[in-house]
Amino acid sequence: MGTTQLESVQEPKYWHLKTVLNDALDSEFEVGEILPNERDLAARFGVARATLRQALEQLELEGRLQRRRGVGTTVAPPRIGVAVGPSANTWPGAGRDAWTTIGCAEAVAPAAVAALLGTAADEAVHTVRRERTVQGQPVATELLYVPPASVPGLPGLLTPAEHAPAVLRELHTLELESEDRAVELGSARAEDAKLLDRLPGAPVLVVTTRYVSGGRVAAASVATYRADTCRLTFGDSGALEVTHHEPESRQAS
Amino acid sequence: MGTTQLESVQEPKYWHLKTVLNDALDSEFEVGEILPNERDLAARFGVARATLRQALEQLELEGRLQRRRGVGTTVAPPRIGVAVGPSANTWPGAGRDAWTTIGCAEAVAPAAVAALLGTAADEAVHTVRRERTVQGQPVATELLYVPPASVPGLPGLLTPAEHAPAVLRELHTLELESEDRAVELGSARAEDAKLLDRLPGAPVLVVTTRYVSGGRVAAASVATYRADTCRLTFGDSGALEVTHHEPESRQAS
Repeated sequence: MGTTQLESVQEPKYWHLKTVLNDALDSEFEVGEILPNERDLAARFGVARATLRQALEQLELEGRLQRRRGVGTTVAPPRIGVAVGPSANTWPGAGRDAWTTIGCAEAVAPAAVAALLGTAADEAVHTVRRERTVQGQPVATELLYVPPASVPGLPGLLTPAEHAPAVLRELHTLELESEDRAVELGSARAEDAKLLDRLPGAPVLVVTTRYVSGGRVAAASVATYRADTCRLTFGDSGALEVTHHEPESRQAS
Repeated sequence: MGTTQLESVQEPKYWHLKTVLNDALDSEFEVGEILPNERDLAARFGVARATLRQALEQLELEGRLQRRRGVGTTVAPPRIGVAVGPSANTWPGAGRDAWTTIGCAEAVAPAAVAALLGTAADEAVHTVRRERTVQGQPVATELLYVPPASVPGLPGLLTPAEHAPAVLRELHTLELESEDRAVELGSARAEDAKLLDRLPGAPVLVVTTRYVSGGRVAAASVATYRADTCRLTFGDSGALEVTHHEPESRQAS
């Protein structure tokens, strides 16, 4: 590309292998197929196991391969588009919500969440655990934090089964002025990993949402999405259908 | 947490080490400080080098540590909130745009982008390379793809310096009906890595944007954000100030 300043960059050895492997995945393997073991693959491509492992890690980051517990490394299906930013502001659990409520407890929020909510560091808040599945697969798990001050009408005595629905119901009586989100890379905590059918430490996309009502943050949520199977979509027209598998072919320069 | 079904999950060895290291980073190190080498760290914590390396990788994924070429592993500053979803639809390069244009060329778009644009697989499109810096640091690099059919008024003879501004100027004459985005995990290509001051293969957040005008996709962009230093923000009120560093302390259950 003429006017961009892209000189030749030294590419590490595994990078070339990754490209070769990527082509092999296209031509020789089906989605869901289990890859040969590392020893055989390393021998076939004439590389060290460490080099092979680096290339496999790259392909996993790019959503081309999936490592599954007890199964091995398989060829990944295209990532699923998961709508995150609704066109209209809506409270969690309101209307056609994609989430399922698992339970609720009163607990001290993590310091960062307490800072978002403007609550005291040692103040217990209602903490609703929810999960989201797409096509029967778990794709995300969420903790929604609601300070008692946001739901003053909440009855005092609630059974565990009543707790989450009551908190959400009270929340829905407030006017939602705005919501904003941040997306960042994280690694799956053990509990989240279990719910998401991943190994602890797997890369995840962490979405933090702030719900504003009456000029203050009335609730906040931290949702953990599987980074291997999900593409998060935002915007007017809902899901953006991008099915590319090869980030390295996205660029023309 | 009473009603959530979170039984004890077996945590791998490096996970515990990660927590210990995280606390050590809080209490003993300053932002920007260089960590001792792996041999010394492994000895201090009484773990194998491989275990240490896994823990360091986790902390890097979580934005706690940065690996910098020629420097080593340093304690990362808080991630920077980078606004991605504007409240109003705007064309790239219009108004108060956070991006700097580097250059433009005519090139065949990657297959996935051609599919988004509805162009033929072998059709050359205008490809504008842009970059984004925050506080003097490169945070993202972008390729904006504009089919010739979207900019029919573009003059035929353009110098390299005139090419990108002319494409953007023509684009701005169209009415932008909507834009939508998808965010997914990727790994940095060599060229992107160089522009972002990262090693090839580093985890990145890939944002694909579709610009709709006249009922069809008039342009599309693929932007690559550093996943270590950036938190992408979306929504009404712009940047969401979340400065937490410890994903493992975010959750109450």
